[in-house]
Order: sequence, then structure tokens, then C-alpha cells
Amino acid sequence: MKDKLEVVKIGGNVIDNPNLLEEFLNDFAQIEGPKILVHGGGKLATQLSEKLDIPVQLIDGRRITSPENLDVVTMVYGGLINKRIVAKLVANGCNAIGLSGADGNSILATKRSTNPIDFGMVGDVQSIQTDFLKLLLDAGITPVFCAISHDGNGQLLNTNADTVTAEIAIAMQQFYDANLMYCFEKPGVLKDVNDLNSVLLSLNKQEYEQMKEDGSIHTGMLPKLKNCFYALENKVQEVKIGNTSMVKPGEPICTKMY
Amino acid sequence: MKDKLEVVKIGGNVIDNPNLLEEFLNDFAQIEGPKILVHGGGKLATQLSEKLDIPVQLIDGRRITSPENLDVVTMVYGGLINKRIVAKLVANGCNAIGLSGADGNSILATKRSTNPIDFGMVGDVQSIQTDFLKLLLDAGITPVFCAISHDGNGQLLNTNADTVTAEIAIAMQQFYDANLMYCFEKPGVLKDVNDLNSVLLSLNKQEYEQMKEDGSIHTGMLPKLKNCFYALENKVQEVKIGNTSMVKPGEPICTKMY
Repeated sequence: MKDKLEVVKIGGNVIDNPNLLEEFLNDFAQIEGPKILVHGGGKLATQLSEKLDIPVQLIDGRRITSPENLDVVTMVYGGLINKRIVAKLVANGCNAIGLSGADGNSILATKRSTNPIDFGMVGDVQSIQTDFLKLLLDAGITPVFCAISHDGNGQLLNTNADTVTAEIAIAMQQFYDANLMYCFEKPGVLKDVNDLNSVLLSLNKQEYEQMKEDGSIHTGMLPKLKNCFYALENKVQEVKIGNTSMVKPGEPICTKMY
Repeated sequence: MKDKLEVVKIGGNVIDNPNLLEEFLNDFAQIEGPKILVHGGGKLATQLSEKLDIPVQLIDGRRITSPENLDVVTMVYGGLINKRIVAKLVANGCNAIGLSGADGNSILATKRSTNPIDFGMVGDVQSIQTDFLKLLLDAGITPVFCAISHDGNGQLLNTNADTVTAEIAIAMQQFYDANLMYCFEKPGVLKDVNDLNSVLLSLNKQEYEQMKEDGSIHTGMLPKLKNCFYALENKVQEVKIGNTSMVKPGEPICTKMY
């Protein structure tokens, strides 16, 4: 039987709420055994871009990463947020190390094709350096990833944090039984988006497809759920979605995919 | 006999010159055996501060680190510059990992006393996590440090890059014979500051004290040289100062302390 590995993603809304982030990091630090954290970005990068008069371009609601945007993201996600999180975790007794995908060649990506839409400096994950992550985990070190990868030729690339998390969990199944947790601001997938008490305790792909069809899933949730089922189909042991209380001991309310 | 360890610092003027930095990283990547890189900051942090209307305060020519300055430094040194360097090194076949002193609790520091001068969020090195660095080096991984440390209670601190480099070399003597190289824009300590051909090939503490007294050493060099002799007195095997060609094979011109 393989050891358990917790792979946890925290979204931008958690990052943007200092008290919630602090509480989450306290709880996360106390998870026993090997664990990996991936953090999203939050509003800081957009705020910095605005202050620097760097245009933030969206096509079909999706963000384009110009070279200037990439610099901002590298500064804010790879620098400020990542190092702040690491310092807090270490203070909480969790021996953390902050990583981008360039560090230890950990996340190799391919720049996304410019056809049909040129997303700029955006990468899609090609491979995860699992031996490197295993080395850190075996030494009791907790990797903390920002969602920046690289192309192996010296170019950093902006990468979707939900996808990075799923790919890490999938790749690490080689050594562990991975539990993938997407922590965001809501307690799980809601049957009624306006009712926080309508959390679905479980969801399978058929039900998800059905909800997608009848429009009862909030559009922002769709890519997240796509990643959930992608991970599940690729043998990740357990995939859950919920708020930050998911990392607390016990059986907190959340949506479990099956 | 202990293995050799190269501990190399590159200064801000190297960072500010993209072609020189590229050439240096190519050469550094080719150094065989265990090695550690520490990089300074360069002008980017000051430029970003100016764009963001964050005042840059100097007292007696020394920079004060306000919380806003610390954020800028964490973004620029810990994020942008560090990750760019790491991506280039990995592309050159050097398995690098970017670190601040918070990562793996690698550089623990004490916030500097506010008396007589309040330097703000500035730290003085207290200890280096040598086992962690040894673990990485043994795995063929090259640590790349920005000069940011932490206080162990969640607070990042700005730290002098020359001092960080000396402290790392001193601490790693436990496992290695450390060679400390300070790479900056000049080919070494100059007898005549206006003559690049007047490099002193060697310098001992007595000569240094003498030159300090007669004012023939540029003031900017004084803290660097102080660190050199500090390292030497603390058993670092070899301490040299020169330009980036120091990391090339052969015996490039530089100043060797003895």
C-alpha cells in the first residue's frame, strides 16, 4: 500500500483574504505526512498591472499573458505571494519550499499554440519532475508551487493553477495515493448557486455533464470540475472540492467526485 | 579531504546587463561539482519602487527597507530575477532551484536593532540550514539565492547579499572546502581605481587596512572586502573578487585574499 499524499490548491479568493489565508496556512501546516500546496494568484497581480499601466487583455473571458503580464505574474505569484506563504508555513512548523515550475525543472510546459487564439506566454503542462518532488517530500519538505512553468529553453510560462495541481496529483500517483483538494471560497459544488447550504456531497461525471447541460453549474466552476474529473480518470485516489475548512481534521463538508 | 564547493555571488551590475548575465549563466552552469549562486538586485527594484511611488529612503548612503520596499524587493529579487536566472540555468543543463532564506528555513535572520538607525525590515544572518543545502547539492541541485531571509516567525527580511554569500560559504565549510567568489563589474581590487589594469592579484588584511587608511579603496568596495576577510577568518578555503570571467575555466585575473 502506498503512502498518502495531500495535494491542495488554494484559489485567489483565499489569497486575497489575509485572515482566511492565515487560518488556512495554520491548518495546512498541521496536516501530517507528505503534502504539496499550489496557490493561485488573486487580485494583487491585476492591481499591480493597473498601477504600472500594463494592459490586462481578455479574450472570451480568458486572460492573455503578454511578456509584461508574465513579469508581473512572476513577481507577484512567484515572489511576493509564494515567499509570504512559505515564511508563514515555516513559522508554523511546516518545512516549506517555494517553487515555480522552472525550479528543479519541476514543471515542464509547452507554449500554447497561437492558433486559434494567441494567449501569449501561456504554457500547458508537459511533464512533472516527480523524482525531485519525491526527494523533497522524503526529506520532510513541503513544496509550495505558484502556477508558473517553463519551456526548458529559459522561458517562463504562465500556467493554469487548477491544471498544475491536477497534473502534480496525477504524476505523484506513481509513488503515493494522492488526495486532491481544490479549496476555494465556497463549501463545494452547489445544487443551487444562491444557496450555500445546497452543497452536493458527491458528484460523478454523468451528473456533472447533466448539470452542465441544464446550466445549473456556475460557469466559473466548469474548468475546475473538468480538472477534477480529469484527475479522477487519471487514477488520482480522491478528488474533492470545497472551502478551506477541508484541510481541518474530521470530515468537513465538501463535494467528493466519484 | 573534503569536496570543493563553489559559492558565487553576482552583483547588481551583472544583473542589469542582460548580455553579460546570459554569458555568466552559461559559464556558471558549466562549473563541475557542487555550487551555490547568490544574486544581488540591480536597478529593477529601484525602478519599480519609483513607478509605484514608493519612496526609497537612504540614511548615510544606506537603504532603509520599509514594508513597501520589502514587498518590492520580494517581488523583484525573489520573483522576477530569481526565476529568470533559474530558468536560464536549467536551460543550460544546470539543475537549479531558486531560494529565499525562508525556503527550507535556509537563512534565519534577526531583525536589525532600530538603534542607532532604524533600517526597517532588514535582517542580519543568524544561521544557515546547512543540512538542507547539503541535501540539494548531493542530489545535483544548485541552490540560487536571492538575499531575502526570514525571522522564523513569518516575517521576511531584506539582507545584504554579500554577507549572505559569506555566511553560506562559512557554514558550508562544515561539509566542503568552499571557494567564495564575488563577481562584480570590475576585474578585481584595483590599486588605482581609474585603471582597470591595476588589479591587485592578491591582498591580505594588513594591506587592506593600509589601503583603507590611505583612502585608495573605493568606498563601495569596503563592505565587500570586509566580507571577504570575514569569510577568510572563518576558515573559508579561498576568497576571490573579480568580474564574471572568474567562473570561466583557467586562471582568470582576479584578486585573491590571503
